[in-house]
Amino acid sequence: MLENISGEQIKNMTLPQLSALCETARQKIISTVFKNGGHLSSNLGSVELTVALHYVFDLPEDKIIFDVGHQCYTHKLLSGRAGNFDTIRKKNGLSGFPKREESEYDCYNTGHAGTSVSAALGIAKARDVEGKDFNVIAVIGDGSFNNGLVYEAFNSLRLLNTRILVILNDNGMSIAPTVGSMHEYLELLSRDDAQKLKRDKHANIFERFGFKYKGVYDGNDLGQIIGQLKEIKEMLKTQSVILHVVTKKGKGYEFCEENPEATHGISVSSSDSVANEYSEVFGNTLTSLAEKDGKIVAVTAAMTSSLGLETFFEKFPERSVDVGICEEHAAILCASMATEGLKPYYAVYSTFLQRSFDEILIDICSQNLPVTLCIDRAGISGSDGETHQGVFDLSFLSPVPNLTIAVPKDVKEFEAMLKFSAGFNAPLAIRYPREGKRIFKRQSEIVYGKWEKLAEADGDAVIIACGERAVTLALVSEQILREENINVSVINARFVKPLDDEMLSRLKEKYIVTVEDNVLAGGLGSLINSYFAGGGKVIRNFAYGDEFIPHGGVAELMAERGLSYEAITEYIKNEIR
Amino acid sequence: MLENISGEQIKNMTLPQLSALCETARQKIISTVFKNGGHLSSNLGSVELTVALHYVFDLPEDKIIFDVGHQCYTHKLLSGRAGNFDTIRKKNGLSGFPKREESEYDCYNTGHAGTSVSAALGIAKARDVEGKDFNVIAVIGDGSFNNGLVYEAFNSLRLLNTRILVILNDNGMSIAPTVGSMHEYLELLSRDDAQKLKRDKHANIFERFGFKYKGVYDGNDLGQIIGQLKEIKEMLKTQSVILHVVTKKGKGYEFCEENPEATHGISVSSSDSVANEYSEVFGNTLTSLAEKDGKIVAVTAAMTSSLGLETFFEKFPERSVDVGICEEHAAILCASMATEGLKPYYAVYSTFLQRSFDEILIDICSQNLPVTLCIDRAGISGSDGETHQGVFDLSFLSPVPNLTIAVPKDVKEFEAMLKFSAGFNAPLAIRYPREGKRIFKRQSEIVYGKWEKLAEADGDAVIIACGERAVTLALVSEQILREENINVSVINARFVKPLDDEMLSRLKEKYIVTVEDNVLAGGLGSLINSYFAGGGKVIRNFAYGDEFIPHGGVAELMAERGLSYEAITEYIKNEIR
Repeated sequence: MLENISGEQIKNMTLPQLSALCETARQKIISTVFKNGGHLSSNLGSVELTVALHYVFDLPEDKIIFDVGHQCYTHKLLSGRAGNFDTIRKKNGLSGFPKREESEYDCYNTGHAGTSVSAALGIAKARDVEGKDFNVIAVIGDGSFNNGLVYEAFNSLRLLNTRILVILNDNGMSIAPTVGSMHEYLELLSRDDAQKLKRDKHANIFERFGFKYKGVYDGNDLGQIIGQLKEIKEMLKTQSVILHVVTKKGKGYEFCEENPEATHGISVSSSDSVANEYSEVFGNTLTSLAEKDGKIVAVTAAMTSSLGLETFFEKFPERSVDVGICEEHAAILCASMATEGLKPYYAVYSTFLQRSFDEILIDICSQNLPVTLCIDRAGISGSDGETHQGVFDLSFLSPVPNLTIAVPKDVKEFEAMLKFSAGFNAPLAIRYPREGKRIFKRQSEIVYGKWEKLAEADGDAVIIACGERAVTLALVSEQILREENINVSVINARFVKPLDDEMLSRLKEKYIVTVEDNVLAGGLGSLINSYFAGGGKVIRNFAYGDEFIPHGGVAELMAERGLSYEAITEYIKNEIR
Repeated sequence: MLENISGEQIKNMTLPQLSALCETARQKIISTVFKNGGHLSSNLGSVELTVALHYVFDLPEDKIIFDVGHQCYTHKLLSGRAGNFDTIRKKNGLSGFPKREESEYDCYNTGHAGTSVSAALGIAKARDVEGKDFNVIAVIGDGSFNNGLVYEAFNSLRLLNTRILVILNDNGMSIAPTVGSMHEYLELLSRDDAQKLKRDKHANIFERFGFKYKGVYDGNDLGQIIGQLKEIKEMLKTQSVILHVVTKKGKGYEFCEENPEATHGISVSSSDSVANEYSEVFGNTLTSLAEKDGKIVAVTAAMTSSLGLETFFEKFPERSVDVGICEEHAAILCASMATEGLKPYYAVYSTFLQRSFDEILIDICSQNLPVTLCIDRAGISGSDGETHQGVFDLSFLSPVPNLTIAVPKDVKEFEAMLKFSAGFNAPLAIRYPREGKRIFKRQSEIVYGKWEKLAEADGDAVIIACGERAVTLALVSEQILREENINVSVINARFVKPLDDEMLSRLKEKYIVTVEDNVLAGGLGSLINSYFAGGGKVIRNFAYGDEFIPHGGVAELMAERGLSYEAITEYIKNEIR
């Protein structure tokens, strides 16, 4: 039924047929996500809304932007992608996020929160400039609604003098339950006694920004939503509208409805075994440090549980802050708490830390404040693709003055670094991947700016690597080469900044190989290249090139880009031996 | 009178004495800014407010954060810095912005807009955690109020369960007149008939976020403001308050009152002559391109005039967008307009572009959209100091895939690059300083990724430079060396990304010297170092090191950091000859 469905077919369906379509889509999503992993409960919650949008609006002429993209699966199923839906999130398969490259039904790629209203305004403005006539719709969850971008976009609606529809899909959750006063206000609007309030132009925050407010409706009630959207389609000819619907995250699948946070994203176990999660080690270690040090506070941006901080937040509620999806605000909170003598830890995914770049530079580092950035999901993160790869953090952090950057080789070293951080009185970034697969035998004390020799040999080459994945490749390569009587040294570059000048200056080896799970520009390799620029050394960098890395498995994506022991050993055998 | 004034003295003054103090401060600010340059009209508007704060609150125990810092001069005068106030913005003198390093009365450094409420919340939260008791005050202008950070901070007030005072200093301006719906709402509140509205808890947007709203008062009426602040000081024991005052930008100096935008910042002419401003060339060229191409749109974030876009905005109002201080939103508007076939130019100062890093990476470049970033005030910007130096843009932009980075050697080449950009169908960044001092004889066609040889010699060394300041240093060095019979080649690296591989591969010279007005990590030099890492070349990089560069004159700050023809010629004479 889904495979060949056309826009015209959907438009000709009766309400019972549309309901059946919802059920089919829902079952397809559940079965696929349990095979491929992906975003489950937010997609289940927005099935009816999406079917209604396809029924009422004229796609792809009318444009829909799905904020973050965690609710785009039904849209993919209805727009000619049901046939290869089972390839979703797999290498060369469908993306888990909206992708212009994939379908004309996807008009704007998303992945990071809060961009949809800005994008809708830009598309609508372009439509006006070009004298065209179509509808532009942003579908945004209440979690994204916390992000400052939404306020910036709302604030410019009248200024841009254009018309859009914003659908606020309010399920009370981002990944975790939504926090903050805007959320409380949305709850207020959802109460029956709020009717008067909603109709009072001055009282409604959205009308103040120039939207006609329509709400609150049950977003899982297909008939009601279709009726509303039809009415709104007429209104859009002359004004902007915000439609506030309440949906049930995980709708139609009991386990998800009851566990919306745990089923926000589903992982499928890979063939590689995961010994530890870095997030777990992070949470445990920080909790135990905080028991001894009352100055330690933890700050997150809507990610408490996936960052491993649940226990910390339970034990130290007064020293725990989750500000919602507000990465910039979180960074400044840390900086300012540090000015008063606290010891803040800002835990965040690598890709989302990009949002805090200016605040890291100006607020944290130009004031040289002892904030520790705990950067999870660094390196290739896998199935989420381009918008979620954490391969830029070394690059945008290395030029930041006053910042020390540490990269643990395994969870045990990570634990030691966290203990080191407790006594470190300046800005510090620690970046690590999700999964800890190995614990290396050699564990030595963490000393500021000092590297660790993991293998020492008389040969001509030394491999300098940072982070578990790269150090693993280096040591595997060393072992293979040793079996072929080629001796190389291996150095664990625990600090990417500062470099271990003393160790570098003593490197007698002629050839240096660098390995890292980051792009080359601005990363470990490029810093070492600059260190040796005046000296005529021969260096080969294994790092990612100048490209956005699509979705796929971590190991396969790395190997494709030359981050494999085969490539490293081959280079050393052919070029150095 | 100002020189030795103590907090205690201020607290013991009568209202007439305090008024006289305001007058003295105002005169001191006017006379100093006309000598040293600086932010004039916003400082003049906030004299009474600042005197009242010093009178009512207990500084430095109570903490004041001045958003952006354009209104901190009176505060500096009242906190022991009147004696050396005439050193403000001069090298080794007082900073034009709040600086913790300078005085215990400055609790948080600012420079970029919208951070003060977040910082106040963090400081207040730290106070609560540590069981201390003092007041925390954010003073923020209505221009900064457009920034999404303020919304993120407001949204978390109840969540953080703390108490702060926000003083909204509403003068209807950022640098330019404030735009947007929030501004219209503030105007609405300022009307007399808004009394009922203000008192209705649900109707007042600020009370919804958990603030007690007090306003609107005349912020230049010293007696009234003192009365309000005294009352608020009591209220702060149990709740957060927002005080909305209206002040006159430029107050007390007729010329400023009538020309608040032109007198926002005052420059003092330096000894170097400025032939052209890049911003002027930008505005003229883009206007003329837009006459021929109806797809061109210009987007700015509250900087239209200083970016040279006044004429463009007048001529093409439908294709001009100033979103206020919303750098992230501006970037997404550009990306989304480009998805619909428009050709957006986003003009912005280098230092403020840092706020858009994630949106440049994800929205513009991962979608490979033809947005042109016109990055003004790149390189050392001078007297504004650490928070305003544009020395990081090459570093955070060079790792961004799909992005081309161009750096013109003079305004004429800049014009050619803009013409080139009109036909370029991918993300492009062009970075340039404020002042154009020279136009070089050699001008050749802009070809994607191709550099330009400015001097060709048989010698052992080649200088590769980008941007007017660095190319000037390179050519002056070349001339001096030539007179001493040392022949060096000079290359204008017009594109920092991609590098001109073909030209690099043909460099017979053994020694390479790179020169750039950017930090080394991630800049031109480091990219060239990585290009040659495998080849054993000897390279010397002239670029800024790992430090925040304080305020001072452009040339003196550059020279101190080795960016001088003396240093370059000395290196080449001693090391290469």
